[in-house]
Amino acid sequence: MVISKNMENLVANSSVIRRLFEEGVELAAVVGKENVYDYSLGNPSVPPPKVVKKAIYEILESRDDNFIHGYMNNSGYEEVRDAVAQSLNDRFDTDFVRESIIMTAGAAGALNCILRTLLNYKDEVICFAPFFGEYRSYISNFGGETIVVPADTKDFQLNLDVLDDYINEKTKAMIINNPNNPSGAVYSAETLDRLQKLLEAAEKRIGHPIYVISDEPYRELVYDGVTVPFMTKHIKNCLVCYSFSKSLSLPGERIGYLAIPKQIDAYEEMQAALVVANRCLGYINAPSLFQLVAKECLYEETDVKAYNENRLLLYNSLTQMGFECVKPQGAFYLFMKSPVPDESQFVKEAKKHNLILVSATTFGCPGYVRLAYCVSNDMIRRSLPAFSALAKSYGMKGEYSV
Amino acid sequence: MVISKNMENLVANSSVIRRLFEEGVELAAVVGKENVYDYSLGNPSVPPPKVVKKAIYEILESRDDNFIHGYMNNSGYEEVRDAVAQSLNDRFDTDFVRESIIMTAGAAGALNCILRTLLNYKDEVICFAPFFGEYRSYISNFGGETIVVPADTKDFQLNLDVLDDYINEKTKAMIINNPNNPSGAVYSAETLDRLQKLLEAAEKRIGHPIYVISDEPYRELVYDGVTVPFMTKHIKNCLVCYSFSKSLSLPGERIGYLAIPKQIDAYEEMQAALVVANRCLGYINAPSLFQLVAKECLYEETDVKAYNENRLLLYNSLTQMGFECVKPQGAFYLFMKSPVPDESQFVKEAKKHNLILVSATTFGCPGYVRLAYCVSNDMIRRSLPAFSALAKSYGMKGEYSV
Repeated sequence: MVISKNMENLVANSSVIRRLFEEGVELAAVVGKENVYDYSLGNPSVPPPKVVKKAIYEILESRDDNFIHGYMNNSGYEEVRDAVAQSLNDRFDTDFVRESIIMTAGAAGALNCILRTLLNYKDEVICFAPFFGEYRSYISNFGGETIVVPADTKDFQLNLDVLDDYINEKTKAMIINNPNNPSGAVYSAETLDRLQKLLEAAEKRIGHPIYVISDEPYRELVYDGVTVPFMTKHIKNCLVCYSFSKSLSLPGERIGYLAIPKQIDAYEEMQAALVVANRCLGYINAPSLFQLVAKECLYEETDVKAYNENRLLLYNSLTQMGFECVKPQGAFYLFMKSPVPDESQFVKEAKKHNLILVSATTFGCPGYVRLAYCVSNDMIRRSLPAFSALAKSYGMKGEYSV
Repeated sequence: MVISKNMENLVANSSVIRRLFEEGVELAAVVGKENVYDYSLGNPSVPPPKVVKKAIYEILESRDDNFIHGYMNNSGYEEVRDAVAQSLNDRFDTDFVRESIIMTAGAAGALNCILRTLLNYKDEVICFAPFFGEYRSYISNFGGETIVVPADTKDFQLNLDVLDDYINEKTKAMIINNPNNPSGAVYSAETLDRLQKLLEAAEKRIGHPIYVISDEPYRELVYDGVTVPFMTKHIKNCLVCYSFSKSLSLPGERIGYLAIPKQIDAYEEMQAALVVANRCLGYINAPSLFQLVAKECLYEETDVKAYNENRLLLYNSLTQMGFECVKPQGAFYLFMKSPVPDESQFVKEAKKHNLILVSATTFGCPGYVRLAYCVSNDMIRRSLPAFSALAKSYGMKGEYSV
C-alpha cells in the first residue's frame, strides 16, 4: 500500500456508500430508472429560487470582471461578510461583526477549518448518534478521534444523561447538527440549555474549553411551526457552520460561512487561526461569484412546501402501513426503525422491492434506516405499493390511504 | 492557547505576510494609493477572456438549474472530465481517461488531496528552493515534514546535484512547480529527465515510490518561445495539479483539476483514494458552474502579451539600473538578488521609496526578493524612478532608458 494508513481505513469504509450507489445504478439498468425508488441521496430536488439566477446576471452585468472572479481577503469580500453579519443580527438578535464571519466552501469547509484549528493528534471530538458519518472523516483528517454518544431513541434529542461519561481532558470539541441528519429531529431550547450547563461543569473539570461546532445546513428546513433555536443564544463556546446548499439548492457551488460569536473563549486567537485555516487547507477563499450571489439571497425564504408535502405523504403512509417512524420536524430525512434488529437485512429485503434505503449503522445508529424525501412527490407516490408489499412481508398491515 | 500546537506555528508565520499587506495599506493611507508600488500580490491583472462570460450565459440559459448547481460525482461531471482528458491528450499526446481526472478546488485543492492521501505522521515531502511557501502549510496539515533542497542560484534549475542527500525512507513525495513561483524559471526537459533517473535510483534504494506532485498554475504563462515540458512525459510517478486561476484569470472561483496518469505505481489504489480525499477534505466536489465553464474554455489561448510587456519593461529597466535579476521565462514573477546579504534590510529600504517587495526567505531563498509583475504597465512605469533612487542609494548606476 502506498497510501497512508489513515486513508486506507477511509477508502475501505467509503466503499459501503459507493456500493449502495452502484447497486442503484445496476438495478436501474435492469428494471428501468423510473422503477427504482432511490431514497438514498441528499440531493435537493427543489430548484434554486429565481433570485439566484437574477443575482448572477446582475453581478455579471454591473461589476468588474477582475473583482467578481479575482482573489479577495481569505475570509471573503468585506461587503459579503458585513451583509451576512447583519442578516444574522436582524433575524436572531445576535451581535456578529465583519470579523466574526468567514465565507467558507460550504459547511463542510467550515467544519474542517475548525477541526484543523483545534485538533492535536489523538484529540477527541464527540458526535451524538445518529450523526452524519462524514464527521468521522473530517476528524480523522487531522489525527483526531471520533467519540460517539449513543442515540436516545425515545425522542432523538441529544442523549445528555450519559454525555459526561464521554468527556475527558482530550475532548476538544463536539459536533451538533440541528435540524439533524438523519433523524429529522430538532433539538429544543431546553435540550440546548441543559447541554450548556453540562458543558460549563465539564469545562471546569477538564480545565479547558469544549467548542460546540454547530453544523446548520438545514436551519431553514423546518415544519409544523417549529423554530430552530439559534445555537449561540444557548451555547457559549459555539461556532456556527452554515451552508446555502439546502436553503438555496446550491450544493454543487460550495458556498457557506463560519460565524464566530464574540462570546467564545479565546475569541481573537480562534478568529485569527480560523482565517489561516481557511487558506492553508487549500480552500484559499470561498468561491467568489457565489459569495456575491449569496449576499443577494440572505433574506430569501426557503420554499419548504414541496418538502413538507413529501414529508407528510411519506410519514403518514408508512406509519399507516405499520412502520415505526420518527416524525421529522426538520431537514428532509425520515428515520425509520427496522422491523428486524439487523437493519442490513431489511435494506436487502427492501431492495427486492426496488427500494433503496440507507442503513443507519453508518450514522452510528444500528437498527434504523434513513429515507431522503428530497425526491419528486411522484416518486414517493409510485413507491408506496412497494413499501406496502415490504410491510406485508414482515407481517405488518401494509394498508394506507392517501 | 486553545488552538493546536501545529496551528500556533502557522499563525505565527502567517503574520509576516499579513504585516506586509497591512504595511501597504498604511502606506497608501499616508501617500495615496496611486503612489504605492505594490509588487507583492500574485493577483492576475489580465481580465478573464470573453469566452468565460459567454460560457456562463450559455450554461445558465440552456441547462437545467438543478444540474448546474447540484451535487454530482465527487470527481466532477463526467462530461467535464472527458473534455479535460481529451484536451490534454490533444495537446500533449498523453493517454488520460475520464477516471484519470478529478476536478478540484484549484491546484491547492489537488495538492491537499495528494498530501492527505500519502502522508503518515512525520513523513517527508521535498521542496526545491525557491518554492511557494504555502506548500509548508499544506504538508503540515497532515503531520508531514517539509524538507527543503537549497536553491541552485546559478540558473535556478532544480538543484539535482545534492538531491539524493535529502531522500530517505520517510520521503513520500516532492513538489515541483513549473514554471516556478517565485523565480520565473522553467525547468527544461533535460533537468526533468535527470530528475527521473535520480528518482528511479532513489526509489530502489528506499523501497517505495516517491510521487512527484507537479503544481502547474502557470503552464500557459511562458515567453520567448519557451515551452514547458509536459511533466508526465518525463517523470513516471507524476501527479499533475492544474489550476485555471492564472490562465483564465479566475483565481477566486477555485477551479482546477488533478490528472493521474495510468503509468504511476499503484494507479488504482491512488485513484480511488484521491477521489475519497476530495470528498473527505470538505471540498466535496469542485464548484459546479465553473466546472462547466472551464469545459468550454479548455482550448483558450492565454493572452500573455500584457504580462510579457510588463516582464520586459521591468527586467530590462532594473537590469540597466544595476540590479541582478533572473530573467523570467514563465509565470509573472521577477526574482531579484538583494544588493545586501540581508534582504529584509533591502525590503525595508525599498519601502522608503514606496516599493513593496517580498523577501524570499519565505520562499526558502534568503538574499533574494520577489516582484509580481501582474500589475498595470502604468504602475511599473511610474515606479521606475523609485527603483532608480533605490539603486543609487546602494551605489549602483540607477540609470535606465525605456
